Amino acid sequence: MNHKVNFEEKFAKFSDFWSPKVVAEMNDYQFKLTRFKGEFAWHDHKDTDEVFIVIEGNMSIELRDGRVDLAAGEMYVVPKGVEHKPLAEQECKVMLVEPRGTVNTGDQESELTAENDVWI
Amino acid sequence: MNHKVNFEEKFAKFSDFWSPKVVAEMNDYQFKLTRFKGEFAWHDHKDTDEVFIVIEGNMSIELRDGRVDLAAGEMYVVPKGVEHKPLAEQECKVMLVEPRGTVNTGDQESELTAENDVWI
Repeated sequence: MNHKVNFEEKFAKFSDFWSPKVVAEMNDYQFKLTRFKGEFAWHDHKDTDEVFIVIEGNMSIELRDGRVDLAAGEMYVVPKGVEHKPLAEQECKVMLVEPRGTVNTGDQESELTAENDVWI
Repeated sequence: MNHKVNFEEKFAKFSDFWSPKVVAEMNDYQFKLTRFKGEFAWHDHKDTDEVFIVIEGNMSIELRDGRVDLAAGEMYVVPKGVEHKPLAEQECKVMLVEPRGTVNTGDQESELTAENDVWI
């Protein structure tokens, strides 16, 4: 029998920013929790859409043609191939949904590129 | 540019139970909001896992080998082919994540089978 996932318990297990942790898998998709603070790098994901669900706090996603502001209880789908830059003035707790193997910086590897497929 | 999804606004648009409404798509997967109250039917999904994320309230998932109790801020993945029966004593607001085309009662069609692919 699978275990349930409690977001608060999982968030208590890490404190680093911009480093998504896998908490569940559905088929070949992963649910990842992450903390955002500050500005991330512009990037895109050539092969997949990406879902952001805000669990606690506020964040924004800059797009080349606009900006989306998200609060807890809101979600946004960045279509594949669309450049975006997540940012959060204050710490924000977020769940990402994306295919297994998706790298946080897409094809734009940098010092912000986090280790992939880290489970907590 | 995509629109963001606000769960509270979306839930305000319907009041029926056990009738999932699509609010977003990621690749060929859908995010659906639904209200649970009472007991659903035993069923399974032969071809896909199914994700339950509790937005507000409490619900349970009965499995043939146990039972999972879920509160707001918790999620559970029912593996494909695993029989399950969702239930909620009081009204519970839930988000489902599953492939486009997934029917709420799986292969067990009944009077509980909801119209598929209804967007709000």
